[in-house]
Amino acid sequence: MNIYDIARMAGVSIATVSRVVNGSDKVSEKTKQRVLSVIEEAGYTPNVFAQGLGLNTMHTVGIMVPRIDDMYMAAAVSYLEQNLHRNGYECILSCSGFELERKQSHASMLLSKRIDALILVGSTYAGNGASSQQTDYIRAAAREVPVFVINGLVEGENVYASISDDRKATFAVTKSLIERGRKRILFLTDSQSYSAQQKMRGYEQALTEAGYPVLGELKLRVARSRIHYVRDLLLEYKALQYDSVVATEDTLAAGALKYALAKGMQVPGDISIVGYNNSVVAVAAEPELTSVDGRLEELCNNTCEHLLKVLKGEKDAVPAVDVVSAMLVKRCTTDF
Amino acid sequence: MNIYDIARMAGVSIATVSRVVNGSDKVSEKTKQRVLSVIEEAGYTPNVFAQGLGLNTMHTVGIMVPRIDDMYMAAAVSYLEQNLHRNGYECILSCSGFELERKQSHASMLLSKRIDALILVGSTYAGNGASSQQTDYIRAAAREVPVFVINGLVEGENVYASISDDRKATFAVTKSLIERGRKRILFLTDSQSYSAQQKMRGYEQALTEAGYPVLGELKLRVARSRIHYVRDLLLEYKALQYDSVVATEDTLAAGALKYALAKGMQVPGDISIVGYNNSVVAVAAEPELTSVDGRLEELCNNTCEHLLKVLKGEKDAVPAVDVVSAMLVKRCTTDF
Repeated sequence: MNIYDIARMAGVSIATVSRVVNGSDKVSEKTKQRVLSVIEEAGYTPNVFAQGLGLNTMHTVGIMVPRIDDMYMAAAVSYLEQNLHRNGYECILSCSGFELERKQSHASMLLSKRIDALILVGSTYAGNGASSQQTDYIRAAAREVPVFVINGLVEGENVYASISDDRKATFAVTKSLIERGRKRILFLTDSQSYSAQQKMRGYEQALTEAGYPVLGELKLRVARSRIHYVRDLLLEYKALQYDSVVATEDTLAAGALKYALAKGMQVPGDISIVGYNNSVVAVAAEPELTSVDGRLEELCNNTCEHLLKVLKGEKDAVPAVDVVSAMLVKRCTTDF
Repeated sequence: MNIYDIARMAGVSIATVSRVVNGSDKVSEKTKQRVLSVIEEAGYTPNVFAQGLGLNTMHTVGIMVPRIDDMYMAAAVSYLEQNLHRNGYECILSCSGFELERKQSHASMLLSKRIDALILVGSTYAGNGASSQQTDYIRAAAREVPVFVINGLVEGENVYASISDDRKATFAVTKSLIERGRKRILFLTDSQSYSAQQKMRGYEQALTEAGYPVLGELKLRVARSRIHYVRDLLLEYKALQYDSVVATEDTLAAGALKYALAKGMQVPGDISIVGYNNSVVAVAAEPELTSVDGRLEELCNNTCEHLLKVLKGEKDAVPAVDVVSAMLVKRCTTDF
């Protein structure tokens, strides 16, 4: 299927097809609709078709992150930008925050810049799973350009996800803590995102398999992942007893570690602590934090590879969901 | 001075002026040059003039950073993006690395996207001061759009700098160490940038004022600012003696701290350590790092304020160089 086929099937010249996919207003509404419906019947979105022709491409990719002053997001943007730049694409960055309305308006803004594809970094874009309405704007965007979600599962035509197996990794690490005799494991998070929920499920599953109860009091969600904030909060919760912590972020784990040190506890003797993301914070901490590495670089490189294939029209070669296994980096805050 | 004045002075219609500033090719080269020279005689660059007219603006700002997976750069982009988005501007991000050639090509790419202004984050863009050739591409860019440099001093028409007083801050912190009896102060850096040089000058000045020699062996430049890399390097340099460390980055200081802990030294008793940037690494470390805060948020907000003024044609209200005072955040690795 090429521009000649589309022109023939729509009964117009190839110049007219080109004008339609380039959004020219020199084509009557009727002709435009006819061409677009032929393109869509052929299984393309107008943008993807135009890119396949080398028309209408700005060689620009939109990247949306909730916030860039987060080491995980910043690292993701860095990997993506370098890879895409090497492949001749530039990046427009947009920081949308965590609210649905702002996500929608930022996505619209990026689409108005005539991007070739949209990458959403972080599981916040997958909503909390409660309602598919929270991700309708992603499927709407995907009618214009292919959309790639990193570490969030969103279903839809022209939507591709690369995710880290957070559930499995958190299950494994919780199970290791149980095997080392830990009985009261605090699950510490600052999020209700898809990824945070997967981690919580892995935690619960390990408890259940071991015959331990899943206690609401041991699942603690805090408002901010700042180290001192977490430390002070844990110091305040005097009645809460736990012998280990599984955190969904290294900064949360670092806060738990500061709490343990402030209480004069031995780590990992009195309390084991596991972080997530294997960031510089895990290494800066003392003792250094055991942490789950979600292999972000691989997620980002896979996403770029998929994106380039889809833009070349090879969408059949790209999985809708690509899963990368997370990896435990053992350091000094656990005894396994 | 408005579009009518320019049209009258150039002897053309306002439509022609509009075409010229919009870069239309439907104007003869001769007419184009005449219009541009009138605009320039009136003291505008074509882009700034066009923006003043509300023509030709994409409401897009180009932001160039050497790398985004650096907490300082990521925080800067975050502050800039939020501020500019609030003011109706979107950001195109480009990660140029540290080589002159790549900086030049990334700047060209951003200019080709018809940005309204260019922001360069980090003192790498100011070169190392050895030759003004290293910053010629900035002055070239400034002939097209106003250029704003954060934490680097570059001179040129239509170039504006917001810098943190790194020399003064490093002078003050080195002086404090000397007053507390430190005699061999290691200066630890990973850069030869403008900012790193300013810090080194402050360090040297404090030594000289106290009558101490400036020793080459105590000025150590390392290839990478990774914590374990720095620790291991310092452990290898067995012959090097020092009783304190002034680092140009928190990760370098965190590396020095890991070295001290590995050697069983008391901090700050046996060795005092000062970091820079007041990042999450300073808080994650144990004991927590004393660190200089370059007040990046203020630098970024000032830059956005200046940028908006210049784009409104109020360039006379904007200083060519804006200096923000750095601030020492005292924590647990120093005894002052």
